[in-house]
Amino acid sequence: MSDTVKPRIFKGLQDLMPQQVLARQWMIDRVRAVYERYGFVPLETPAIEYLEVLTGSAAGEEAARSLFTVRNPDRIHSPGRDALGLRFDLTVPLARVVAQYRDLPRPFRRYQVATVWRADKPDPGRFREFTQFDLDSVGVASEVADAEIIAGMCDALAALGVDYRVRFSSRALLNLLLDYAEIPRRQGSDVFRVLDKLDKKGIDKVRLELQGGYRDESGDEVAGLGLAAAQVELIERFLAIRAPQREEVIGQLRELFSGLEHAAAEIDVVARIAGHLSALGYDDRQAALDLSIARGLAYYTGPVFEAVLADAPQFGSVFGGGRYDFLVERFSGQKVPATGASMGVDRLLAALEHLGRLPAKKATAAVLVTVFDRALESEYLAMTYELRRAGIPAELYLGSAGRVGKQLKYADACGIPLCVIVGPDEHQRQEVQIKDMGVGKRRSEQVQEREAWLEERPGQRRVPRSELVATVRRMLAVIAGEER
Amino acid sequence: MSDTVKPRIFKGLQDLMPQQVLARQWMIDRVRAVYERYGFVPLETPAIEYLEVLTGSAAGEEAARSLFTVRNPDRIHSPGRDALGLRFDLTVPLARVVAQYRDLPRPFRRYQVATVWRADKPDPGRFREFTQFDLDSVGVASEVADAEIIAGMCDALAALGVDYRVRFSSRALLNLLLDYAEIPRRQGSDVFRVLDKLDKKGIDKVRLELQGGYRDESGDEVAGLGLAAAQVELIERFLAIRAPQREEVIGQLRELFSGLEHAAAEIDVVARIAGHLSALGYDDRQAALDLSIARGLAYYTGPVFEAVLADAPQFGSVFGGGRYDFLVERFSGQKVPATGASMGVDRLLAALEHLGRLPAKKATAAVLVTVFDRALESEYLAMTYELRRAGIPAELYLGSAGRVGKQLKYADACGIPLCVIVGPDEHQRQEVQIKDMGVGKRRSEQVQEREAWLEERPGQRRVPRSELVATVRRMLAVIAGEER
Repeated sequence: MSDTVKPRIFKGLQDLMPQQVLARQWMIDRVRAVYERYGFVPLETPAIEYLEVLTGSAAGEEAARSLFTVRNPDRIHSPGRDALGLRFDLTVPLARVVAQYRDLPRPFRRYQVATVWRADKPDPGRFREFTQFDLDSVGVASEVADAEIIAGMCDALAALGVDYRVRFSSRALLNLLLDYAEIPRRQGSDVFRVLDKLDKKGIDKVRLELQGGYRDESGDEVAGLGLAAAQVELIERFLAIRAPQREEVIGQLRELFSGLEHAAAEIDVVARIAGHLSALGYDDRQAALDLSIARGLAYYTGPVFEAVLADAPQFGSVFGGGRYDFLVERFSGQKVPATGASMGVDRLLAALEHLGRLPAKKATAAVLVTVFDRALESEYLAMTYELRRAGIPAELYLGSAGRVGKQLKYADACGIPLCVIVGPDEHQRQEVQIKDMGVGKRRSEQVQEREAWLEERPGQRRVPRSELVATVRRMLAVIAGEER
Repeated sequence: MSDTVKPRIFKGLQDLMPQQVLARQWMIDRVRAVYERYGFVPLETPAIEYLEVLTGSAAGEEAARSLFTVRNPDRIHSPGRDALGLRFDLTVPLARVVAQYRDLPRPFRRYQVATVWRADKPDPGRFREFTQFDLDSVGVASEVADAEIIAGMCDALAALGVDYRVRFSSRALLNLLLDYAEIPRRQGSDVFRVLDKLDKKGIDKVRLELQGGYRDESGDEVAGLGLAAAQVELIERFLAIRAPQREEVIGQLRELFSGLEHAAAEIDVVARIAGHLSALGYDDRQAALDLSIARGLAYYTGPVFEAVLADAPQFGSVFGGGRYDFLVERFSGQKVPATGASMGVDRLLAALEHLGRLPAKKATAAVLVTVFDRALESEYLAMTYELRRAGIPAELYLGSAGRVGKQLKYADACGIPLCVIVGPDEHQRQEVQIKDMGVGKRRSEQVQEREAWLEERPGQRRVPRSELVATVRRMLAVIAGEER
């Protein structure tokens, strides 16, 4: 056919194969269980939103650059205020929902797991379509809500079996730092954006960028913010506050900012969060007060949080958030306090895969019923449904029949652990053969024990037809025990 | 603030509130369990695809009209072959994946649950963004695969607790009908599109549309296909074949088409599907051979299936599909047999809601820990985490504290069944009060029994602090028993 279409996907997008989807589903189910144990409720919003909802009335330029725009089918020419785009996060749609439905219970504590889109140039590991898993409390000013978000981050990561470090700080502390270093508040977001690079670029480059700028490895000019050396020195004094204990950090902070008005009240905020975390049993390794974190997003107004994996810090922040008390105001004109965090599902999955912490499951079927003889098709079908109805995930081989060897290879490629084989002989004797696909591949001590238990040809077992379900169940239990 | 943005969503899109998402999640989990029991594996593909992938090299006009197009950020002006759009179904992306990844196991039996978009004018209950839940077998020519898809439709609907009717037929039978009525094959898709309206419009209007056309209620001209009365009469003879038994339908078909070459082979196909279904125990009520179904989509080549709810037929087809042996060829140039079905999650949810079959759960929390006295905040936090760590979903009231009445109202609005109340008195005596929010609302016999069990003020129970978790667990068990 000459007019075939080339099968391809757009740069920065990805197809997820069964093993990846099963791992992702495992992850989402575990995290969802934690969020639901916290009593957060799920929300779903459309992927398509009005562009002005996504970018806001002002300050939306940055967001607009990384937006995928969608043609409005009702206003194809000059859509104006009715222009559409794909959401780039789940926080802005949440703010829109809170402003739109005035009868929502307050506090509104919701979780949402969904796809978001960003049109920026893709990098390896940085996709244009990816999944976020957010939890937020809207309508709550109390620091208990912030502490709960941090605890939720800890518990979600613990549920995935990884060693994590949640770090928190506060935009308000950074604002105090501006006052302390005599930097005008309006320069704040520029300064914070530079400080946010501390982990990635190191203190030397950050220092240069805060002052006169520098030329990077590839020869590009990195513009400086033009701060004075004395100002940067004060910033570094702040960043030097590092201590293993949250309480110690707070003590040093109080000392550093002792001359500043309002400082005590802002330090009390993080002190209360630290106190709640201690009361709940989250230690300083699990949730550290770390003044070096800033979080890039402009809408944060108070506490900010982020998490890295202790064994895979190179993946950066896999889970981050903060308090954003003015986002709803953009829509409603009323200030509504809000705090939350967003898990980067794809990045975290990549990190877990790197750490070998993902379940290796490729198949959903536990048994493949092979087709030895077309004439016995109805018997194969019957066995398949007998297994399924007993709750055992079973697949009937649907390819062209005949060579059982090819079918066993298929089971192997799919990762299906057991195969059922019935030829005319077995059928006549009312027997079935069940083959354990794992045996012969690994000949560990456990496998040898299993062989002894099977009392037959390694990995192959012949039983009466009537014992099919019971035997499969027992063999699967043995395999599950081995894998544990 | 003068420059607030109006919070609104685009026409045809919807926000799903917690109760709706919980119901949808329940549905998806149940259906997924069935598909996995069948050994289908999950796949995920991007929402954004190249337009040419979605519409194909030819015949894509109809699809193109209902596509949302997305601006390609890498080719903003004249994207040409790199134009992008949002997927309108999950079948085309599956065909693309099968053609693109040659090393996928064959047969490839996959399920996918995902959002799709159609730009057509929305109606009540017809959205522009909705969820499909598909299962497909690719690379399988055998009718066992078709029978398995039909069985999967039956089992998925049964798992949702509804009475369903799956109906199946075959495009090949309709092609035989064309020959029988001496209608050229190239007119087939037009004829089938008209026949597909049989359920909705009735035989009289279909008859007129097959011949000279008619003017509908609103005065619009409905063009006719120009068939002769004698041809329509033959079509009606075919449609008149209705019988409660699949075998009987097949017998009448053989009789009607006895003069046609190739008829026997095509009738054998549906006869084999019917035979497999009988062998698996699906009766004629569950899966009927119904010659009146045609399915609109042009890409079907063989058996077609659809399901309606017996108690809510007005919702139409909630689950439909068929065999499409040429879809992969569009990409690979090679014929790859394929068959599958797609569940319309939103329409089915609407139908289940109409039937009162959805779980009424609004909250994920089973307990609200109220805040009677700010001074006891750390005690409330501790109780909340004690419950959570015991696996009981618990929420700490995070709104402004003080009036417990307001907090009880909040629990009620959220659908949280139990509230924990601890004031200074209880705290001093190391006691907790637990309030059952359901009591007092319904005073059924069961509720009165529960009150007797509680041995106290209806719905209120005071126990030692140390018995909090155990008592909550017992009260929840009683409530669950009542609701069953």
